[in-house]
Amino acid sequence: MFETVARVQYFDTDKMMVMHHANYIRYFEMGRTEYLRSEGMPYSEMEKNDFQIPILSVEAEYKDPAVYDEEIVIACRITKLSYASMEMEYEIRSKESGKLHVKGKSRHGFTNQALKPIPLKKKLPEIYEFFSRLYEKDCCTD
Amino acid sequence: MFETVARVQYFDTDKMMVMHHANYIRYFEMGRTEYLRSEGMPYSEMEKNDFQIPILSVEAEYKDPAVYDEEIVIACRITKLSYASMEMEYEIRSKESGKLHVKGKSRHGFTNQALKPIPLKKKLPEIYEFFSRLYEKDCCTD
Amino acid sequence: MFETVARVQYFDTDKMMVMHHANYIRYFEMGRTEYLRSEGMPYSEMEKNDFQIPILSVEAEYKDPAVYDEEIVIACRITKLSYASMEMEYEIRSKESGKLHVKGKSRHGFTNQALKPIPLKKKLPEIYEFFSRLYEKDCCTD
Amino acid sequence: MFETVARVQYFDTDKMMVMHHANYIRYFEMGRTEYLRSEGMPYSEMEKNDFQIPILSVEAEYKDPAVYDEEIVIACRITKLSYASMEMEYEIRSKESGKLHVKGKSRHGFTNQALKPIPLKKKLPEIYEFFSRLYEKDCCTD
Repeated sequence: MFETVARVQYFDTDKMMVMHHANYIRYFEMGRTEYLRSEGMPYSEMEKNDFQIPILSVEAEYKDPAVYDEEIVIACRITKLSYASMEMEYEIRSKESGKLHVKGKSRHGFTNQALKPIPLKKKLPEIYEFFSRLYEKDCCTD
Repeated sequence: MFETVARVQYFDTDKMMVMHHANYIRYFEMGRTEYLRSEGMPYSEMEKNDFQIPILSVEAEYKDPAVYDEEIVIACRITKLSYASMEMEYEIRSKESGKLHVKGKSRHGFTNQALKPIPLKKKLPEIYEFFSRLYEKDCCTD
Repeated sequence: MFETVARVQYFDTDKMMVMHHANYIRYFEMGRTEYLRSEGMPYSEMEKNDFQIPILSVEAEYKDPAVYDEEIVIACRITKLSYASMEMEYEIRSKESGKLHVKGKSRHGFTNQALKPIPLKKKLPEIYEFFSRLYEKDCCTD
Repeated sequence: MFETVARVQYFDTDKMMVMHHANYIRYFEMGRTEYLRSEGMPYSEMEKNDFQIPILSVEAEYKDPAVYDEEIVIACRITKLSYASMEMEYEIRSKESGKLHVKGKSRHGFTNQALKPIPLKKKLPEIYEFFSRLYEKDCCTD
């Protein structure tokens, strides 16, 4: 899986002395964004084609809390791809120990900027091919 | 289900012109907190008994985006209760139209402030009875 | 000053066990928004006239930290008004004790949605009159 | 000034299509943290000595908005140092163009974890010397 490294900020923590649970969902987004960029098609470029991938659902399982100033590794990959949507999977681990903090999934629709669904393969074939390539490469590995 | 009313703030929105998806997870927390308070046992009181309910998992299904300045209704209830954990369910709707924005679930463990699991029924029976009462009342209604 | 009541959420806190300092800036925004609404012209209405008030500067002085689950009162008023900008002042206090948590100021320009400055008095006189009325009423009281 | 590079995330933006103003205050914190780390004394280490630097005030002047996915450079330095507090200065610029987005200041007290002021030079001389060294080095340069 593609990996992004980030560091837990003070503002990410809460009075439980660990990262607030909603913030992992933000780090999923960061991991997703860096994955697309690293593969050559930044999300900001996709947007210029009047395209976006709004979230349809998200899940997170909290295994072990990340703490302030810790470096975390956000791994992600595309696990399902259809003409209308895709599914991604995430793991957030401690960089130092490799211990799993959180795993999760998100599903995303394919829409224009006005949030209308679009037939991606037909309308923006180069983006569809891009997602297909990532899916083929990463969907089924460990 | 118990209902809390809140308003989508400017800082809740993102450049998709709607509430950012991670922020619904925060509003689940607000709804949960207000539910416990309204039933007579604020979470801040539970904490004084060296008790907390860290999140074990969360899911959200995004149906329709909430927009800036809109009043939203956060409904929640306890749907499962065991000696070691509980599950809650949420619906966030438009106050004006009743339209469903997001539905979700969260599971929570029963721990002390040091995040060690505790046998709730034995250790803090009044809190266990409190959750039981909410569960009986709300688990299975519409 | 006009007052809005809010409650410090779990997600507002950090590992210092108090509200994270950046979040008071968000509550300034909430207070400002509710002030405009209460006076009859919600910010979301202003936006429909292709108008917005982007922030030019902000200051906050932290006096005493707000804690989890505490009710806070956000007071605000317009303290300066020109053709091109306005200044607002804030106080965030404990609802229960009245103790001052934070005081602050913000300056705002008058622009269209594309962030181009507009001559407010000429272009949108009813909004200018609205701000003038608030300024006259609240600028110089305690 | 010491420089940290970060990237504006989707969750940092708001419906004005730019970074939400409160989030620059968070990036000041990130810049401050990385500055201390780069100089050899991470804030998380200071905390282990029962020491922290709670914020006393903050100011930001917004010059030009940062946009989604842009790389920003957060520059910071210590501009004042006394036995009881210090002041830091920040500039956030576009990495690509060097254009100034925001400049700001923060003041910080020297306290223990219970937020009681401590005489830093006497109690934790090695931390005081550390801050002195940064101050001497960076306070007065451009």
